[in-house]
Amino acid sequence: MSNEKGPDHSRRRERSRQAILAATRALVAEEAYEKVTVEAIAARAGVGKQTIYRRWPSKSAVVFAAVLALSEGADGQSVALPDTGDLEADLKLVMRATAEEFADPAFDRLIRALTTEIANDAALAAEYRERLAQPLQEAKKARLRSAQEAGQLDPGADLDLVLEVLYAPLFQRWLHRGAPLTAAYADSLVDATLRAFAP
Amino acid sequence: MSNEKGPDHSRRRERSRQAILAATRALVAEEAYEKVTVEAIAARAGVGKQTIYRRWPSKSAVVFAAVLALSEGADGQSVALPDTGDLEADLKLVMRATAEEFADPAFDRLIRALTTEIANDAALAAEYRERLAQPLQEAKKARLRSAQEAGQLDPGADLDLVLEVLYAPLFQRWLHRGAPLTAAYADSLVDATLRAFAP
Repeated sequence: MSNEKGPDHSRRRERSRQAILAATRALVAEEAYEKVTVEAIAARAGVGKQTIYRRWPSKSAVVFAAVLALSEGADGQSVALPDTGDLEADLKLVMRATAEEFADPAFDRLIRALTTEIANDAALAAEYRERLAQPLQEAKKARLRSAQEAGQLDPGADLDLVLEVLYAPLFQRWLHRGAPLTAAYADSLVDATLRAFAP
Repeated sequence: MSNEKGPDHSRRRERSRQAILAATRALVAEEAYEKVTVEAIAARAGVGKQTIYRRWPSKSAVVFAAVLALSEGADGQSVALPDTGDLEADLKLVMRATAEEFADPAFDRLIRALTTEIANDAALAAEYRERLAQPLQEAKKARLRSAQEAGQLDPGADLDLVLEVLYAPLFQRWLHRGAPLTAAYADSLVDATLRAFAP
């Protein structure tokens, strides 16, 4: 008799987890968010509904896990921002990539769904901050600290504020679909931020 | 026989409209947003459900109307920003008031509900921009243009970008419940924006 908790079981469990998260991302990219149900995710993933509910309490929890999984497999290093010694060039590279990512329809719908859940669920918002936003925030701050040491950024600047001034306009423009997220726009945010927090 | 389309009819119609919008604001402030229904709004307002559906196609449309109504009665003038000639002082006044407004629980829940609807409904987002965001945006730009003429702001600055750098961090911090919206925080956004777009 096979050991239920042995390596085969772990592999099966991990395969089913990956199938559920991939199904979630696919469905959210295809359908109006309110029409995506745990039942539909289970059917697409080829598992029973209870397999999902044993692991996650709600649709929003599965959607959050599906977003988290996008940054899995990345080791600690790969979250780090580029540091060529040229802050302006490094930030423009990152902000242009961010603008492109948000402009991608599949990513757009997934993050829009998560943003909606977070806006109305204070507990999920706290988990989002702890597990996703803060680690990214710390990686970005490490790059800014290096710039402070290199004399390229006000050494007294509040780095949370610097990151908000840099990223929040892009986030808001995306959320309200105010205008296209172009590379020129990404650059203009870097320029404004560097002027605001010049040494 | 009374004239159905006469002044009495108009007054009754306006009273019922106001009752529906007040009921919407009250319910959204009290209940989890997904639990607020058109039926509950009708019951609270003392009208039939069809009275609501004759005027608005959906819950999100009623919620949007309830937010719009908050700026009703304001004539064109009162939307204008203060202009004492001191840009920094005027913007700090406005940003502190904005921070306070978002920190108010009743306003918080109403705007959170609207933000959620807008995030997932491109048509409502467009209507929001046209009827609410753009008129406010124009009033703010008029104040910034006056500052440009007075030599207090870069005359070549993109005013949409200036307003995003000023407001988006506050909006994002509020939406993600990142940290309290204090007067000091409001001031720091004005300071950063004025440095970024100094003449």
